[in-house]
Amino acid sequence: MKYSKLFGRTVKTVSKDLKLISNKYLYQAGFIRESVAGRYYYLPLGMIVRDKVVKIIEEEMDKSGAQKILAPVLHPLELWEKTNRTESVSFELMKVKDRNGSEFALGGTAEEMMVDLVQKFNISYNDLPFHIYQFSTKFRDELRARGGLLRLREFLMKDGYSFHADEKDFKKEYEKMQKVYRNIFKRLGLETLMVESDNGYIGGEYCHEFIVESEAGESRFLYTKDGSYAAHEDIAKFLKEKKNVDEKENKLTEVKAPRGNTMEDGVKFHKLPLWQQIKDVMFVDEKGRFILAIIRGDLNVNETKLKNIIKAVELRHATDEEIRELGSEPGFISPVGISKKVLVVADDSLKTIKNAYGGSNKKNIDLLNVNINRDYKPNLEGDIALAEEGFKNEQGQKLLAGKGIEVGNIFQLGYHYSEKMKALLTDKDGKEKMYYMGCYGIGIDRTIATVVEKYYDDNGIIWPEAIAPFKAHLIALGKDEKIYKQAEEIYEKLIKSGVEVLYDDRVNVMAGEKFADADLIGLPARIVISEKSLKAGGLELKKRGDKKNEIIKVSDLVKCFKL
Amino acid sequence: MKYSKLFGRTVKTVSKDLKLISNKYLYQAGFIRESVAGRYYYLPLGMIVRDKVVKIIEEEMDKSGAQKILAPVLHPLELWEKTNRTESVSFELMKVKDRNGSEFALGGTAEEMMVDLVQKFNISYNDLPFHIYQFSTKFRDELRARGGLLRLREFLMKDGYSFHADEKDFKKEYEKMQKVYRNIFKRLGLETLMVESDNGYIGGEYCHEFIVESEAGESRFLYTKDGSYAAHEDIAKFLKEKKNVDEKENKLTEVKAPRGNTMEDGVKFHKLPLWQQIKDVMFVDEKGRFILAIIRGDLNVNETKLKNIIKAVELRHATDEEIRELGSEPGFISPVGISKKVLVVADDSLKTIKNAYGGSNKKNIDLLNVNINRDYKPNLEGDIALAEEGFKNEQGQKLLAGKGIEVGNIFQLGYHYSEKMKALLTDKDGKEKMYYMGCYGIGIDRTIATVVEKYYDDNGIIWPEAIAPFKAHLIALGKDEKIYKQAEEIYEKLIKSGVEVLYDDRVNVMAGEKFADADLIGLPARIVISEKSLKAGGLELKKRGDKKNEIIKVSDLVKCFKL
Repeated sequence: MKYSKLFGRTVKTVSKDLKLISNKYLYQAGFIRESVAGRYYYLPLGMIVRDKVVKIIEEEMDKSGAQKILAPVLHPLELWEKTNRTESVSFELMKVKDRNGSEFALGGTAEEMMVDLVQKFNISYNDLPFHIYQFSTKFRDELRARGGLLRLREFLMKDGYSFHADEKDFKKEYEKMQKVYRNIFKRLGLETLMVESDNGYIGGEYCHEFIVESEAGESRFLYTKDGSYAAHEDIAKFLKEKKNVDEKENKLTEVKAPRGNTMEDGVKFHKLPLWQQIKDVMFVDEKGRFILAIIRGDLNVNETKLKNIIKAVELRHATDEEIRELGSEPGFISPVGISKKVLVVADDSLKTIKNAYGGSNKKNIDLLNVNINRDYKPNLEGDIALAEEGFKNEQGQKLLAGKGIEVGNIFQLGYHYSEKMKALLTDKDGKEKMYYMGCYGIGIDRTIATVVEKYYDDNGIIWPEAIAPFKAHLIALGKDEKIYKQAEEIYEKLIKSGVEVLYDDRVNVMAGEKFADADLIGLPARIVISEKSLKAGGLELKKRGDKKNEIIKVSDLVKCFKL
Repeated sequence: MKYSKLFGRTVKTVSKDLKLISNKYLYQAGFIRESVAGRYYYLPLGMIVRDKVVKIIEEEMDKSGAQKILAPVLHPLELWEKTNRTESVSFELMKVKDRNGSEFALGGTAEEMMVDLVQKFNISYNDLPFHIYQFSTKFRDELRARGGLLRLREFLMKDGYSFHADEKDFKKEYEKMQKVYRNIFKRLGLETLMVESDNGYIGGEYCHEFIVESEAGESRFLYTKDGSYAAHEDIAKFLKEKKNVDEKENKLTEVKAPRGNTMEDGVKFHKLPLWQQIKDVMFVDEKGRFILAIIRGDLNVNETKLKNIIKAVELRHATDEEIRELGSEPGFISPVGISKKVLVVADDSLKTIKNAYGGSNKKNIDLLNVNINRDYKPNLEGDIALAEEGFKNEQGQKLLAGKGIEVGNIFQLGYHYSEKMKALLTDKDGKEKMYYMGCYGIGIDRTIATVVEKYYDDNGIIWPEAIAPFKAHLIALGKDEKIYKQAEEIYEKLIKSGVEVLYDDRVNVMAGEKFADADLIGLPARIVISEKSLKAGGLELKKRGDKKNEIIKVSDLVKCFKL
């Protein structure tokens, strides 16, 4: 490709709004352009990278025995109704009606479609296991899109679905896919951590995210130094050590408490430890339900854990007015005597303490010696606590906190879809039987952004060989026609030898600008031909990221590119 | 690929509803499955074919200098509003709103998006010409979907857009793309006719369809034997020879005419030639307008020509009640004295006759000696006549009628989008200037169906080498383990040699069934290994479509596949 012909070239300056490195450089170097928030155009350079990423994933998936197929983008809504997912993902799912009034979901994930497809064949135990996958555009009506390709409302996803007779057989595939994924990401230049995570709206019991550590990421996770444990913050469990649990329960007492509204104000006023205070957080869910989450004072509530326990899709904090309308008081909320309209959810940490203290639902009055299941009975009990760095896991190992980008995930789905969709297979004994499923996703666009977040310097991107849009950036300098003639010959020769090359053939552009563009675009090798280089014996070859260059003979150039 | 592992295998019987050959065989041989009407799943075999078709198109497009990009599937509706296309294609365009209330069109073609993208760069005359293209899923809310891949509501399209300084430069690209398209289709095994056609809703002045002659097609066109003329029926012009145009105009006369309602009834009753009668057809468009199309009695109205003249999107025939409510009478409609609510559109053939006869808007009363522009004045005049086989073109050559499948099209767009979207470039003199555009489409799914419509026999598909899912179908026969062991070795060897092979490794399936499946799937070469073949000296090699097979030595097998 000649740079003078390239559609979508570099730009010198970018808006300060492009805060993420990947967004800034992919824009500036001419790989992408925004259509509207969360929806992007791929320019020719970006398209080559995208195709290379797709090809690597495809190769590894095929090698694993998975088979590529394709489902329509528009999913008949009735399929999603069978699994009750039109409701549970209703804030993200986009829907459209056709001229005949048929309703469709714009596919955001394709479990229902794949089960629908499989149902079109009378499969038997003999046909299992199998794994089908696709690359297809997915739509999610995200509340907020981040800049660039990290969180899109429309994106390309590799989504695979495996079908098994039972859990034992599924686990083999689940383990195989872990290796396949590691290998895919490795080929893309990405080291990934496999982290236990929240199953979300997919349905099923467990799943793992493949996370690339990065400050640009939004996935927070906890792990042990030895690598034996890694879990997303939304599901990470930790040891809630017993505090004063052996104390005898004292009499519930109401006391005047002219104090401020914070937890610290309570500690100061009562001169009691933070952990002995009850933390009360009032939420409202998408259906308008009030939920009071209570937890030991030294811990925090994780909203995803809470959502999962109460089966809510979205949560917000209740307002002061709403709290007062419930007959309580901001800063003085208590599970003791709270309105029956409120669903009380207790973290199991409250069982590690006795004689807790906290509000009374009345201003400036506190309760002392509050004890769970004596003074109040929560509607639900469980783990809704946020794991934090420094906590210990259940094996007593110290937890470290990490942050990264989720580039892939693998899910156990179990019999969930087979059951909900009444999709069955014929077993050995001729009887109908449910099948066991797994699913496996990789976000292509996000993966590309992640590579850039990992491989860059102050001057631009540093593409890993495997997905660089071209292997070499050939630059001719000066105004001498002879130089350009020779550059053209080198360009042709590289192409003939199978070396992908971008040739900066612009005559009226200064050396500095050409070098800056080459650094920005970030191809692995830069080849310069100029009067100076020819005098020095040939061409200047420099690796992107290196400071030094070497002079090589023109005749040796092709040899430098291992194919 | 081993057949026993393949997802989506052949089926023995198919529903009689699958009338189209391509639909029937692609279903039966395990290439596709219907999701809902007009939306299909691709199974692994179909997916391989699709990828090969895409690759060939991509190679030829890249070779031509076009550059691959990608636009989002969801187009901001405001872009379509700029070109007034939300209205003119409103019956086909699907729309969706996101949670923030932003409206989007599900892309059916992408002129607006490409202009939007180009506008993000300050392009100058120096950057022209360029051609950008994409493969992307398109949505059209077709009133009716045909079975299989011939007419879909959701499909993959290669759509390219070229940008030029002026018409002269555009024409070079237009001619180049004609060659590129011919070459693409040739590589896919399809001979195409380039046929002038209706520009439809794209905007612009002229365009051509690439048509593969086929009974399964819906494109009707007229052409001359020498190939100098080929035009879609919707735009084909023909010579409307003068009839009695030199007669003097007689006095308009009302006569009693107790006759039936057909044209033939008029001829019989008045004993006058059919061509002298006025044919009146009353239509209603999507806005509820009444349109009276009138034409010489021996000709028929072409609705597309009519729609283009009156700028309507859809037409239907008026009902008898509607005609009566207008104060006219079915079978006796006349432009003379018709309600002013009615838009009268006259075909220019009415100028080739004098003293015409026809209805009077009153039952059983006809008019004689009706003359255009004396007794009635049409609101619009032009060519709304259907060209038919046997007519002559304007050069006097006889027209032949053809029928086929439109697999591609190329459009002149001119300054249309540049003007409507106020998208400009900087010219040499520093002034802003509109740019000249063309666009170029190929429907991938329809192309695949067309190949099957051309290459099949009673037993199944006969894939052309270039896009066959595999090159060879290896079949092991019998129950002898040794045979299967040797087959496995051959299978491995073919793969290692780069020969794509499907291996029917089923042990409990009879020879007849294996042969039938091989014929149905239609791979270019069938290789049989059996006790019989080994006794005869090796393997049976048969080309799909041939009746005879030959015996080749096992060691010679790989040589038989030219790579």
